[in-house]
Amino acid sequence: MSLDNILKQSLSRWMTGDGPNNSVAISSRVRLARNLAEYPFPGRASPSQLEEVEQKVRRWWNTGGLESLGITDYISIKDIPENERLALADKHLISPKLARQGYGGVLVNKDESVSVMVNEEDHLRIQSLMSGSQLREAWNLASQVDDLFDAGFCYAWSSQTGYLTCCPTNVGTGMRASIMLHLPGLAFSGQLALVLGTISKVGVMVRGMFGEGSEAQGNVYQISNQITLGQREEDIIEALNRVTDQVICQELDARQKLAGTDNLALSDRVWRAYGILANARVITSTEAMEYVSLLRLGLDLNILEGLNPRILQELLVFAQPGYLQKIYNQVLSPRQRDVKRAELIRELVKK
Amino acid sequence: MSLDNILKQSLSRWMTGDGPNNSVAISSRVRLARNLAEYPFPGRASPSQLEEVEQKVRRWWNTGGLESLGITDYISIKDIPENERLALADKHLISPKLARQGYGGVLVNKDESVSVMVNEEDHLRIQSLMSGSQLREAWNLASQVDDLFDAGFCYAWSSQTGYLTCCPTNVGTGMRASIMLHLPGLAFSGQLALVLGTISKVGVMVRGMFGEGSEAQGNVYQISNQITLGQREEDIIEALNRVTDQVICQELDARQKLAGTDNLALSDRVWRAYGILANARVITSTEAMEYVSLLRLGLDLNILEGLNPRILQELLVFAQPGYLQKIYNQVLSPRQRDVKRAELIRELVKK
Repeated sequence: MSLDNILKQSLSRWMTGDGPNNSVAISSRVRLARNLAEYPFPGRASPSQLEEVEQKVRRWWNTGGLESLGITDYISIKDIPENERLALADKHLISPKLARQGYGGVLVNKDESVSVMVNEEDHLRIQSLMSGSQLREAWNLASQVDDLFDAGFCYAWSSQTGYLTCCPTNVGTGMRASIMLHLPGLAFSGQLALVLGTISKVGVMVRGMFGEGSEAQGNVYQISNQITLGQREEDIIEALNRVTDQVICQELDARQKLAGTDNLALSDRVWRAYGILANARVITSTEAMEYVSLLRLGLDLNILEGLNPRILQELLVFAQPGYLQKIYNQVLSPRQRDVKRAELIRELVKK
Repeated sequence: MSLDNILKQSLSRWMTGDGPNNSVAISSRVRLARNLAEYPFPGRASPSQLEEVEQKVRRWWNTGGLESLGITDYISIKDIPENERLALADKHLISPKLARQGYGGVLVNKDESVSVMVNEEDHLRIQSLMSGSQLREAWNLASQVDDLFDAGFCYAWSSQTGYLTCCPTNVGTGMRASIMLHLPGLAFSGQLALVLGTISKVGVMVRGMFGEGSEAQGNVYQISNQITLGQREEDIIEALNRVTDQVICQELDARQKLAGTDNLALSDRVWRAYGILANARVITSTEAMEYVSLLRLGLDLNILEGLNPRILQELLVFAQPGYLQKIYNQVLSPRQRDVKRAELIRELVKK
């Protein structure tokens, strides 16, 4: 298959970049942690119990339990070549943990807006992923999937606390809602630390683009709810929405000021970033993300044109180690990845 | 006039890059310091004496004293707009000192291989400039010019020491022979300090591309004779030739090794340099020279192609403050120069 086709077929719905506030908001995600009442949490379950959970979910899906969602495949992690597992994590369809642990599985629908991990930290991790700022829509979709599972299984649930989960930080709603924001304006104008520091005081977490423990790359930050217990899902979503709307406003404001005060310096940085991406022969992921962030900012501010702004989403996924191995269909050393990444980026930027 | 035409007409013979050893040797130059016996050195001469010297030289040229050289113009420094004086220095036709002092003049032939400064540090500074490593040829040409002047004027000369000059370091032959070498191979492989340190122990001086007191930019070094007294001109030229031939060999050797050991890292640096030059919107002279040095190395090693290797010579001259002001026909602040330089380089690299 040509590189072009591989990449086209690799675009998840959330990567298209056509959602609301798409100049800042990359994607919105809601995930729900759920467990089956009759089994211990995956971490304490025996191999045969884990196997039983997977079998049960699979059978239920096979008999049409998720028919309305258009889920076409149940992917068992152990059936995927090791080097391709990370590619699924790069697309945020599974967690890096599931990719690494080597067992469990995932249900994915056609446009990859829904994925359900089985036997990750919890028996079920229902996830919906959407483009731009669509936290409400993502919640609605995840909730629909949850209702379907609820009809087929008996969830571990307590009337006092709500859903029971492996990790206490998820108990209650079991929900983590998050939004990925591209914040180059705040970064370049030196306001990022202040803005992110302020919002982290109102029950919101800020992380890099691969969630917990990941570093921010390319000025992309994930903002999510901290509290899962004692609040209604709708209220959590609304609160997070208010915060992100504010951050988006501040980012747009910072960009306008940047463009106004010294457009030439910014323009120089943007064009150099383009020049490097279009010509480098070896490039690390961190460096690539730094430059593509500038490139995307340049596109948003009309400093340069003729490139699809989706380049940011594409690099967020395709330039990651796992996806590179999938695209080039081989296990790559870090150095080889840097070479192939440069090759891929030159292709992407050429268009 | 279009930029293209201005640049075409601005190419001195030495800038064409077609001389011997042109992958390393940029240009060869010989200059002879001479003074007229009946006048004090310019630094001690009265304004009317300086005027007399200029008048004398001018009249003699007008009556055909230099006919065989094709010198078409006597340029009086005070007649040139201030911002264009530096452009002559950028092309090495006059010294920065003459450009700054605002009086004196210069005779230049059609292909700019000969220039004679009048009333710089000495009454006459005869200079020949050639492409590549042509020290002998440059000496022959300078010597012919010298003979012509010798027939028309009475030089300050002593049978014991030779030609008398304003500065004692020039007494004797009054000759400074120099060659400009592009040494990126030695620079990137870390051998430059050693090589230049060694040759400076054998009576050879190493300087930046604008001679005394100038910093090396873009890995371009000027190597010249230190001694002017007590040696025959031919012997000085031969000694300098031997040293430069060695340096050229070492440079070519270093390039081959660089290309052999980690071609990818080198290729990456070369292509990024190209990407930056082709896209930057603001660029300093030092930075431009750093990248064009890499670009030229890449052309010499066939890492990239389709560009005229003369780009190095062009940037050595056209990207300098004086020449930029001439090309764009206006006085430019340092910041404006960085912008215009970037604009010019994008044009030059596009071809």
